[in-house]
Amino acid sequence: MAREIQFGKAAIKCGIFTFRCRPQEGGGDRMEKGYLPEERMLPAIHLVRRFTASAGQGHPAAKSVRVVKGYETGIYLTNGGSIIINGERHALQRYHIRFLREGDRVSSEPGYTCDSIYFDFGDSGVFYENEMLAAIPSFFMGNESHAFLFQKIAEYAKSGETGAAAAMNGLLLQMVSGYYHLLHSKEDYSETVKSCLSYMKEHLGEHITLSDLGDFTGYSALHVLRLFKENTGRTPHAHLTKMRIAYAKELLAEGNDPLAAVASACGFDSESHFQSLFKKQTGITPGKYRKYAMQLT
Amino acid sequence: MAREIQFGKAAIKCGIFTFRCRPQEGGGDRMEKGYLPEERMLPAIHLVRRFTASAGQGHPAAKSVRVVKGYETGIYLTNGGSIIINGERHALQRYHIRFLREGDRVSSEPGYTCDSIYFDFGDSGVFYENEMLAAIPSFFMGNESHAFLFQKIAEYAKSGETGAAAAMNGLLLQMVSGYYHLLHSKEDYSETVKSCLSYMKEHLGEHITLSDLGDFTGYSALHVLRLFKENTGRTPHAHLTKMRIAYAKELLAEGNDPLAAVASACGFDSESHFQSLFKKQTGITPGKYRKYAMQLT
Repeated sequence: MAREIQFGKAAIKCGIFTFRCRPQEGGGDRMEKGYLPEERMLPAIHLVRRFTASAGQGHPAAKSVRVVKGYETGIYLTNGGSIIINGERHALQRYHIRFLREGDRVSSEPGYTCDSIYFDFGDSGVFYENEMLAAIPSFFMGNESHAFLFQKIAEYAKSGETGAAAAMNGLLLQMVSGYYHLLHSKEDYSETVKSCLSYMKEHLGEHITLSDLGDFTGYSALHVLRLFKENTGRTPHAHLTKMRIAYAKELLAEGNDPLAAVASACGFDSESHFQSLFKKQTGITPGKYRKYAMQLT
Repeated sequence: MAREIQFGKAAIKCGIFTFRCRPQEGGGDRMEKGYLPEERMLPAIHLVRRFTASAGQGHPAAKSVRVVKGYETGIYLTNGGSIIINGERHALQRYHIRFLREGDRVSSEPGYTCDSIYFDFGDSGVFYENEMLAAIPSFFMGNESHAFLFQKIAEYAKSGETGAAAAMNGLLLQMVSGYYHLLHSKEDYSETVKSCLSYMKEHLGEHITLSDLGDFTGYSALHVLRLFKENTGRTPHAHLTKMRIAYAKELLAEGNDPLAAVASACGFDSESHFQSLFKKQTGITPGKYRKYAMQLT
């Protein structure tokens, strides 16, 4: 339970808005929880499979409730049958997608055909999540391009050739981030969030607080914070940092200004704060970044 | 140097046919070397950039020789200019691709426009390689789809939004494995290798040695080994293991045979050998695999 609270705190800090406390299952088989930055997400694919549950076949496994371990995703290729996820029933149509995670309770009824992948991220025994993964719903409508990705992954899985594993991981990462982008587009952000993002972009070099955004929009700081988390999965502060780092990258790559000047232009309090934050977000120091940028020309 | 030999041994063991000993540079800035299984390849993207070197502009950085750190790849979007890689000059045409790695010596001459990505795999300070990466040449002709992937990665890099980092990593993994598959297709294998692969598939449950393949093809065992490495980047034994694991997966998912029977049907010496090898290759035990396979139906 201590770990659960710890993860909850980390999740809130990182902008996961709702931290679902799922019922504890009887078994000692449950995974620990951890937070995994998007940049470090490496899928470990355990199983790729197509399954057809024919109507009336009465496949026993298709009836009983099971509790999901790690992650699984699947795309339905036919109309028919249904899936019950955490008590909610969904009638299955072609290109419906399920994205299930640790602790979800699921059962299904024939008949359907689906392509399924069972996977997790990194070390087995730890269930990793982040704001992107948390924002993907359990059930939604996909499209033909998703079915194509599943099929490609299945082909690579069958081939087992050199280069297949890397390709599968690449496709799965692309698919999962695609789920997120399918459902969370910048165009769908509320006008308030959009105007705050523009405001931040224009005043990047200045000190900007949550109450500044409140004053600017005419709402309370708390309301702005909540809107940001709901719309983007991130706090305004996290956006501001990303924007500042992105602008710093431009300045580092295009000019010869000293680091202190770059830090100041991007609104960082000090050069040392800039240096440490840049390293943390990008993995390399501003100096190295500039060196690589010069090198690549 | 001890590490270099160690990597060389690991590379040979894993089927990298030529282990290039590059000249040691003066600086103490060089990365250590390591072997990274394909399944564990996680790109860390440091820089994404479009650069135009106009003819006659005399950009100084475009003239001097530099030594590459980690990995970089780029696609040329125009005809014109040239690149000199390890002493070999290449006239640049649209969709030419460079794939440079630790220690490569490179310089270039205007005018060209290229999209470039600088990246490595995992821990900084270690230069990771494997049979797939080793088999990608430094310079080759790509196509429009590569240019599209570069452009998508650049868009995500600019956006910095939730989901962008995961998508970039997915696309880059896909691109790098795509380089390999563009240049190494099963159709291009020699007839000898193809017939050995068929032979192994048909006799999967039996004990197969390199000399069996020699007898079967009428060549020496050493010749067969060399052909396999040249054509596929892997030894016959590595292929055999992959095939056995793939067949074991089928049997585990589709039936209820005891593990000992599955091991025997797939040509493993013993159930314990099967168990440990399966775990090593897939990350999970045969028992867990079966459980997941049943679960996903």
